[in-house]
Amino acid sequence: MITKPESIRDDATFPNSERIYIKGKIHSEVKVAMREISLSETTHPNGRVEQNKPVRVYDTSGPWGDPEYQGDVTRGLPALRQDWILARGDVEEYDGRSTKPEDNGYLSDQHSRQYNEGKPGKNRLIEYPGLKRNPLRGKKGSPVTQMHYAREGIITPEMEYIAIRENLGREAAYKALKDGKRDPRNVMNFEHPGQSWGAKTPEFITAEFVREEVARGRAIIPSNINHPESEPMIIGRNFLVKINANIGNSAVTSSIEEEVEKMRWGTKWGADTVMDLSTGKNIHATREWIIRNSPVPIGTVPIYQALEKVKGRIEDLSWEVFRDTLIEQAEQGVDYFTIHAGVLLRFIPSTATRMTGIVSRGGSIMAKWCLSHHKENFLYTHWDDICDIMAAYDVSFSIGDGLRPGSIADANDYPQFAELKVQGELTERAWAKGVQVMNEGPGHVPMHMIQENMEKQLEWCHEAPFYTLGPLTTDIAPAYDHITSGIGAAMIGWYGCAMLCYVTPKEHLGLPDRDDVREGVITYKIAAHAADLAKGHPAAQERDNAVSKARFEFRWDDQFNLGLDPERAREYHDETLPKEGAKTAHFCSMCGPTFCSMKISDEVRQYAAENGLETEEAITAGMKEKAEEFANSGREIYS
Amino acid sequence: MITKPESIRDDATFPNSERIYIKGKIHSEVKVAMREISLSETTHPNGRVEQNKPVRVYDTSGPWGDPEYQGDVTRGLPALRQDWILARGDVEEYDGRSTKPEDNGYLSDQHSRQYNEGKPGKNRLIEYPGLKRNPLRGKKGSPVTQMHYAREGIITPEMEYIAIRENLGREAAYKALKDGKRDPRNVMNFEHPGQSWGAKTPEFITAEFVREEVARGRAIIPSNINHPESEPMIIGRNFLVKINANIGNSAVTSSIEEEVEKMRWGTKWGADTVMDLSTGKNIHATREWIIRNSPVPIGTVPIYQALEKVKGRIEDLSWEVFRDTLIEQAEQGVDYFTIHAGVLLRFIPSTATRMTGIVSRGGSIMAKWCLSHHKENFLYTHWDDICDIMAAYDVSFSIGDGLRPGSIADANDYPQFAELKVQGELTERAWAKGVQVMNEGPGHVPMHMIQENMEKQLEWCHEAPFYTLGPLTTDIAPAYDHITSGIGAAMIGWYGCAMLCYVTPKEHLGLPDRDDVREGVITYKIAAHAADLAKGHPAAQERDNAVSKARFEFRWDDQFNLGLDPERAREYHDETLPKEGAKTAHFCSMCGPTFCSMKISDEVRQYAAENGLETEEAITAGMKEKAEEFANSGREIYS
Repeated sequence: MITKPESIRDDATFPNSERIYIKGKIHSEVKVAMREISLSETTHPNGRVEQNKPVRVYDTSGPWGDPEYQGDVTRGLPALRQDWILARGDVEEYDGRSTKPEDNGYLSDQHSRQYNEGKPGKNRLIEYPGLKRNPLRGKKGSPVTQMHYAREGIITPEMEYIAIRENLGREAAYKALKDGKRDPRNVMNFEHPGQSWGAKTPEFITAEFVREEVARGRAIIPSNINHPESEPMIIGRNFLVKINANIGNSAVTSSIEEEVEKMRWGTKWGADTVMDLSTGKNIHATREWIIRNSPVPIGTVPIYQALEKVKGRIEDLSWEVFRDTLIEQAEQGVDYFTIHAGVLLRFIPSTATRMTGIVSRGGSIMAKWCLSHHKENFLYTHWDDICDIMAAYDVSFSIGDGLRPGSIADANDYPQFAELKVQGELTERAWAKGVQVMNEGPGHVPMHMIQENMEKQLEWCHEAPFYTLGPLTTDIAPAYDHITSGIGAAMIGWYGCAMLCYVTPKEHLGLPDRDDVREGVITYKIAAHAADLAKGHPAAQERDNAVSKARFEFRWDDQFNLGLDPERAREYHDETLPKEGAKTAHFCSMCGPTFCSMKISDEVRQYAAENGLETEEAITAGMKEKAEEFANSGREIYS
Repeated sequence: MITKPESIRDDATFPNSERIYIKGKIHSEVKVAMREISLSETTHPNGRVEQNKPVRVYDTSGPWGDPEYQGDVTRGLPALRQDWILARGDVEEYDGRSTKPEDNGYLSDQHSRQYNEGKPGKNRLIEYPGLKRNPLRGKKGSPVTQMHYAREGIITPEMEYIAIRENLGREAAYKALKDGKRDPRNVMNFEHPGQSWGAKTPEFITAEFVREEVARGRAIIPSNINHPESEPMIIGRNFLVKINANIGNSAVTSSIEEEVEKMRWGTKWGADTVMDLSTGKNIHATREWIIRNSPVPIGTVPIYQALEKVKGRIEDLSWEVFRDTLIEQAEQGVDYFTIHAGVLLRFIPSTATRMTGIVSRGGSIMAKWCLSHHKENFLYTHWDDICDIMAAYDVSFSIGDGLRPGSIADANDYPQFAELKVQGELTERAWAKGVQVMNEGPGHVPMHMIQENMEKQLEWCHEAPFYTLGPLTTDIAPAYDHITSGIGAAMIGWYGCAMLCYVTPKEHLGLPDRDDVREGVITYKIAAHAADLAKGHPAAQERDNAVSKARFEFRWDDQFNLGLDPERAREYHDETLPKEGAKTAHFCSMCGPTFCSMKISDEVRQYAAENGLETEEAITAGMKEKAEEFANSGREIYS
């Protein structure tokens, strides 16, 4: 049996941090989790003591990040949203589809038993032992999606949760905006095309603003009614930029236990959603473990499992197998599906002359299917059927970009943009059915060609949220593609991309391990946050300022604790100056005790204050005075 | 005694690489070193075998990267440029300044002996044992700078060396441009403000083009006549973007041996210049070791050593001590000096209200000096004197940005831009004396405020090359500032910045070790190369294309070898699929043997070719035919 990984409670929390909950005003049952980092006080050179207010940060770790939480992975997380879902009165419980051997890649129950008998833990089928609820689905008649409610004018608890969450618990930042009291040194860019709030910047992200954006299709709240464990979050360009972390076993390596732990680990560091891209055996069981334990929305690419069900023979894929897989996964609680319905038969020949053909797995599967059958992509021809399923569970679309470029050479080419236009058509059709939609984007794009991607997506896909993989801005650095792509991700986030799919150092080379997931997530948190700053998100800069102030004041522990990775920052510091005393020292290892610019700068401040030299006039007067002194003494100042 | 580090010959070279030399046509003595990476052949599905041409790459490792080279660090590198310098007939050899105890931070020779007696190797004063040439300087009358020669219409061997080097040995890329035969999928951006070649793109970087750019002040060739060991390189926005790596001992840690090895290590990975920022003891000796062994230009901040000479008492700094230090370092062969002459007394008060005051070491030293004396910055008042020294040795200016922002909150503020304007004034005055100039820039700048930095610098500093540190695009990720800054560096490189000063993961926390230097250099090579692609440098994309092709064709070893860090790419691959056979396998660990998008894509190509489905018409016809078949059989295609 799988057991709760030892590590969970030990490493789930961050130093000097407290888990706090902020209550809703519209929905009193809403309690939004945040992490509050306490800071030490500043002692100024003149002896004055200044308290530094704690900083609240967005927290994606869910109950795993709450030291009070006593659960374990065999039982799953509490069903936070269950009552909200039921209270809407538009869903029904039903028996649901029975799990079949083929869901986990076996020919029969006997095959499964034979295959797993005596196998060691790794890669063995281990059914999730916790609570299995009957699935819910919408009663016939209308969709049960957040978009539907938003259009009806309803502010759901999910929407209020999100409004509070997006404000990071700090009304001050927004209040200041309203009063025109922003620090003039802190010149933010509210006119950027990357966001649309423009002139009518909301002084505060209100629940009503969330509702409007979701109704308009400009933001989505991925929230399958069968994943009540998830904490509401929003993906849209007028909100904080989000990041996704991919996990997933593969035919070559990794186990169920590892995948669950990767999800938990990824959300600790800040993954806003997690995609389970498992292939091979035990897909269904792995996904059950992940969903029941995930505080963030889970996305999948259902065609991967459908392909396993037909034993890897692409020609044997059919609408029936795919439909069955969609329902299977919708009942489990998957929050968004990547569906490559824009890979149309007529676009495929133009990929043959590319540098790197088709690099999307889903895209290449559908391309081969289309060619083999000389038929149009069945995901496209069955789009309305798919929409009906999505609407009944509130699964959001992540319309796949199966023809995305796989190299710098193929960026922004015909097949890529031809598919993007179809993504726009599919978006409108999904909206007509009340289904939430985002669109996937590239991939590999040099810097000067990134903005065109964003502009075309906004125009052709009617401002539905964009969700890109990177993009990588060069191909010459295998083992560093978190960085080649982090550059592109930050830029497209600034231009208006709503969610960034992370890339780890192992991209193109192997499967990410624990360290790679951490490195990938942190890199993408950097990209997303840099984009939030550049877009002028009103609350974004507070954390930067807190780090900067701590740094300038040599509050080392505060600097570490406020960072995205306190542990590593502390470790790097201690490599050079390991003594505990050094962490309160007014110098650092770069310059040593007697030669430090921040120390000197502090002296400059002090000197200026003591000598009344705080204005340009005083300085000029002082200089003149000295000059006269020097002149009188017969010496020259300027030789 | 220091000995040649064991590691040098073992780790100096890259796999499957050959050192080649390309001869000059104007100056037959010019031999430009490059690294040529051999590739394996491609076997196509139809059995056709394709040869893949070797790829030549820019090589900064100097003789250390040549397996034939037998030298060691105690003897220093061959004086590549010595004959070129002497042949110009405008320099004289002279006795030069004697080394004084204070140059290495000692009160007297006796103090030095006492201090070092019985000390272990680390931090002990070890005089460079190799050849000490008498210094050269320009004969009175005219500067001996590359700018001066360029203005006189002379194409120096240095300029021809650079022209060959910048073309990466591949005339084809430039030829294609001339013929208008560029791959239409490879849409480059020649209209970008980041470069000025615009409509008159040179088909090939010619020596004459190099001369023009240097004469115009739009590019510099840092090349002190007393550093004949250095290989010529150019810094300017119409050339490949360059990167600088900082090294330097400090009062807290590191030794001479480590610093020499860091220089060698940094240039192995691609550092185009190295700044020696040593402080504390043994500065002179450390620098001698570094310069004598460095194939790349060396930069310093002379005020650091001047401060050591006055025992750290900023008030005691004077023009005399500074002047002595400039000459000391110019005689040793330092190629560029960072001088913070733009920190004017009247700007200082406005830094007192900043979030992070003055964070530049040089800037804070000068600020304190100015305030203490109520006098104008002596570097500013002595600018013409400084220029005369620079002109006599061809030391280039890197005009410091002592008031650069130290945090996101302080970006693009009054003191920063006030200083930048003065940098522009100083640039013109240096040019009037024939001295080469680049300008230093920030620092910490959110993405949307980066372009303004570049635009103002181009305008105010008359297109002199810009040289920035990062900039960091957020402050919330200590331990990952190579990434926060790599994003900003790539962007400003695209906008036209000519050289990027690297930032390592240890920034703000501690001193970089060997791994940090590697990580920092590779990150900045990525940023510089991404910028070269985005600027549309005609030769930049060839390496990307070669990696992409290797990747698509599962030529694993070629993919590794073509990358910036072959060793790490191979290591990451082997973690998941360690068997040697896997490196020629037509699949990878991400998907496993039966499920791989690149494999499927290859099948799509093959299928399309075999079935004559290579055009949109053929596909449509085929689909129609199939549709008729289906219609005749009474079944529906689209349900």
